[in-house]
Amino acid sequence: MHHVTTIEELEKYLHENIPLSESMGVQVKMATPEQVLLAAPLAPNINHHQTVFGGSGAVLATLAAWSLLHVRLNQEQIDAQLVIQRSSMEYDRPIHGDFEAVSRFTDGPAWHRFRSTLERRGRARITVNAYLLHADIEMGSFVGDFVAFRH
Amino acid sequence: MHHVTTIEELEKYLHENIPLSESMGVQVKMATPEQVLLAAPLAPNINHHQTVFGGSGAVLATLAAWSLLHVRLNQEQIDAQLVIQRSSMEYDRPIHGDFEAVSRFTDGPAWHRFRSTLERRGRARITVNAYLLHADIEMGSFVGDFVAFRH
Repeated sequence: MHHVTTIEELEKYLHENIPLSESMGVQVKMATPEQVLLAAPLAPNINHHQTVFGGSGAVLATLAAWSLLHVRLNQEQIDAQLVIQRSSMEYDRPIHGDFEAVSRFTDGPAWHRFRSTLERRGRARITVNAYLLHADIEMGSFVGDFVAFRH
Repeated sequence: MHHVTTIEELEKYLHENIPLSESMGVQVKMATPEQVLLAAPLAPNINHHQTVFGGSGAVLATLAAWSLLHVRLNQEQIDAQLVIQRSSMEYDRPIHGDFEAVSRFTDGPAWHRFRSTLERRGRARITVNAYLLHADIEMGSFVGDFVAFRH
C-alpha cells in the first residue's frame, strides 16, 4: 500500500514543524517521489546586496532534499526518522529575485541499498542532491548526506 | 585609522540587511576582529524532532563567519563586497536548546595574503571556519569560502 504526500500536506508539514520555512515564505510547487520543487520569494530572504542571502539558498536546498526523502519514505510507508549529517553548497551566481530549489531522484540502486540496509540494520545513509534555480537557470548546487533510523 | 564595529552595530546591520537573521532571533554576543559569537533561541529554529533545524545551524554559522570578515574589513577600513562561494557543514549531534555559532580568526598569514591579493587584483578569496555550540559543547562545524571584491 502506498501513501501519496500531496503538495498541501507537505507545505503544511514544513510550516508547522519547521517555522523557519514559514518565515522564508517557502511554498511547495511539486511533491512526488521523483521530484520535489520548492519556491521562496526574495523579500524575506534578501541580503545587503539585494540578492538572495546564501543561508536562505542553503536552507531551501536542504528542505528540498529532505522533503524528497520524506515523500519517498511516506510512499513506501517506512516509518523512519531522518537526520542530516553533512552538507555542502556551491553558490554559482547571485540570485536577483524569487528562487526555487529542486531535488530529483535519479539513483534507483542507491535507494534499494538504502532501503535494505535500513531494514537490516535499523539505520542507513543516503546522499541527495538539490539545485537552486532562478528563471529556470541553475544558480547553485547542494549535496547532503542524510541518515535514517527506524523507530 | 581603525574602525571598531560594536555588538549593537553588527546586530542592527544583520537584522536590517538580512531579515532572516531577525526571524531567527539572531543576537550578537561578541564582535571583535578576533572572534564573533552569535546566539539564537530554539523556538524559531526548531524542527519536527524538537531540536535545532539543520538549516538554521548552517545559517547561524554562515552569519558568524561572514560577520568575522565584515568586522575585520571594517577595522582596516577596506571597502569590499563579500560574497560566499561555497560552504560545507558537519552536523555532529542534535541540539536540544538555544545555540551559538563562533568564528575565530586564527590564520594571520592567510589574512595578509588575502589583503594583499585584494589590494593588487581587486579580488581575493579566503576560507573561514565556524562552530556550532550548545552549552559550550561543539555540536557542528562549518567551513566557508568567501570572495571579496573592491568597490
